[in-house]
Amino acid sequence: MLIEENLPLFQSIVQPTLLLDELRAKANIAFMAAKAQKAAVRFRPHFKTHQSAEIGEWFRPHGVDAITVSSVEMAAYFAAHGWRDITIAFPVNLRQIDALNDLARRVRLGLLVESVQSAAFLAANLRVPSDVWLKIDVGAGRTGLPWNRPERLLPIAKALQVAPHLSLRGLLTHAGHTYGAGSAAAVRQIYTETLKRLESPLTLLQQALGQELEISVGDTPACTLVEDLSGVDEIRPGNFIFYDAEQYLWGTCHAGQIAVAVACPVVAVHPERETVVVYGGAIHFNKDFTDYRGQRAYGLVALPTVKGWSEPLEGAYVSSLSQEHGLVHVPARWLDQIQVGSLLVILPAHSCLAVTALKRYLSLDGRIIETMNVS
Amino acid sequence: MLIEENLPLFQSIVQPTLLLDELRAKANIAFMAAKAQKAAVRFRPHFKTHQSAEIGEWFRPHGVDAITVSSVEMAAYFAAHGWRDITIAFPVNLRQIDALNDLARRVRLGLLVESVQSAAFLAANLRVPSDVWLKIDVGAGRTGLPWNRPERLLPIAKALQVAPHLSLRGLLTHAGHTYGAGSAAAVRQIYTETLKRLESPLTLLQQALGQELEISVGDTPACTLVEDLSGVDEIRPGNFIFYDAEQYLWGTCHAGQIAVAVACPVVAVHPERETVVVYGGAIHFNKDFTDYRGQRAYGLVALPTVKGWSEPLEGAYVSSLSQEHGLVHVPARWLDQIQVGSLLVILPAHSCLAVTALKRYLSLDGRIIETMNVS
Repeated sequence: MLIEENLPLFQSIVQPTLLLDELRAKANIAFMAAKAQKAAVRFRPHFKTHQSAEIGEWFRPHGVDAITVSSVEMAAYFAAHGWRDITIAFPVNLRQIDALNDLARRVRLGLLVESVQSAAFLAANLRVPSDVWLKIDVGAGRTGLPWNRPERLLPIAKALQVAPHLSLRGLLTHAGHTYGAGSAAAVRQIYTETLKRLESPLTLLQQALGQELEISVGDTPACTLVEDLSGVDEIRPGNFIFYDAEQYLWGTCHAGQIAVAVACPVVAVHPERETVVVYGGAIHFNKDFTDYRGQRAYGLVALPTVKGWSEPLEGAYVSSLSQEHGLVHVPARWLDQIQVGSLLVILPAHSCLAVTALKRYLSLDGRIIETMNVS
Repeated sequence: MLIEENLPLFQSIVQPTLLLDELRAKANIAFMAAKAQKAAVRFRPHFKTHQSAEIGEWFRPHGVDAITVSSVEMAAYFAAHGWRDITIAFPVNLRQIDALNDLARRVRLGLLVESVQSAAFLAANLRVPSDVWLKIDVGAGRTGLPWNRPERLLPIAKALQVAPHLSLRGLLTHAGHTYGAGSAAAVRQIYTETLKRLESPLTLLQQALGQELEISVGDTPACTLVEDLSGVDEIRPGNFIFYDAEQYLWGTCHAGQIAVAVACPVVAVHPERETVVVYGGAIHFNKDFTDYRGQRAYGLVALPTVKGWSEPLEGAYVSSLSQEHGLVHVPARWLDQIQVGSLLVILPAHSCLAVTALKRYLSLDGRIIETMNVS
């Protein structure tokens, strides 16, 4: 195709392709690392967003040596790439006990527990020294023990104490309700509330056990928007490395911080209904959406440029996704820049899921960067 | 784990696993093949649902030798596995012209066109004899030329006529608005309307070109529920091989026809809020949902049995999906059968997307069956 005449990177693209702006990603890393350093908190980034050994290396110059992952497989992948301090931020899956024993022999492993059953099972079956975090629900209502029932933590801590090789390290929470909180002020308020809600369980447990415990927090909106992160022991943000359309629309980041996007071939243009059909669907983006001016939006829309992609086109968004194709609402004033055979650059609603679906990146200088999903 | 004591298949499962009930899938194939045969229409099944060379072979005993796919990659995969008559039911992606020329040399290739630009491009750049279908929108509003503007078909047909190696085969539609039509009667009415809406464009084109043209239709609800499919030349249903929770809730199938499900380890149980947390999230199911009693449901819920899985548990559904985990609403009366470390069997909202995400099947007799997504 000869459509993007002065854009050699784009000329070679024939199907949905995950673009990575390496400079932006590295700037995002530097921003968060500096913030953690200033607050004197451990920076344990969540690697579930990029899922790439090569990109993981970009954290090391910032002194990062501890990471967070979301599955046993992801832990094994990064362990194989030299990471030696890994927290699996997911309620421990007892059925993977063999893999956990294997991992714990190779790395300092952190596990999440939220029930007496899981604690007792680990005490009996995990045979290698490991850290355990108690997962606390501070209001997100997803997983974890409720912050306002601190007495429920004691029997779990006691079940862990039976096993001297299991070390209770602290309380861990993910304040997922900052997602969509509505404003920077609301995010900051949730963060303050989060720390407040952890006080009582922390005090109770420290007194009962006679030991110091740590606090681990980590959602991208709070870690980005809260100015002073001191008062916790570690932060675990992940999405911040790329951000995405949702974080942009929520005001967590500006458009120039979004570091991944998906180039999609245009296969049909229907000017009469202001709709463009692209090759790029649920199997490329995963079917997650966010709100754009009251509409369900699976992504925002940009155009290819020499430097990567343009600012989001005002009023344009991906309105639906089928298995392989997407319907894009494009206001009439942009349509003369779009034709069958050209490319749109879609800023996905949720970057982590697009990365999983597309498996590899194309950097703006034309390099392929692989993730753990390339088998 | 020793939880599913009498269920050896399930004892070996440690992470989200796509189960396939081979007998049900084969019964679904036989049902649709018999229906097509009775109506004397070509059965050109859509292979985007199963995406597997091995499962594709199950169609051959029914005389199937023509298939539908949704991407050039899928066409190449099935061409490599012996299929010689393949329609890519997706508006042709001009940027993949090299791959299309390559494919057309090996198979009888069918392409979809819905613009003069695409027709002219193919006339100039596709160098191997191929079939072209005009994509008609009969009301779904996704892709295709509007059924009520038949005059717009003529310039496209003329652009194709320039190239004698391109053969206009007929009109193709996907009446996607049968999805969620609400009742079998509504689905049947849409089908009748679909055929009616194709009459005028068909007549106009046949008269203008002086040739006979074919009609291709194919959505699972209509192909399942309409009793007499005669009156078209071919049907292209895909989802019917497995069906899923959505088709079940819409009344397209009964629960005993659902042929795939995902076994997911339970990692937390919160009886006080009737919630079970499973290892099994957006990266395993894709984040598609359907309506279950007014709630957003990413899947329905069953329990492991000797024969595979139980009927759906009344009132239970997957209420949200994060990257790796799912929240399952489970009414209190089922909770005594569920514990941390046991398995739930989730009937996904949309089977095609779960297949893409999970890449391989575990048949109920313990065999691994691969798809094109295993690289």
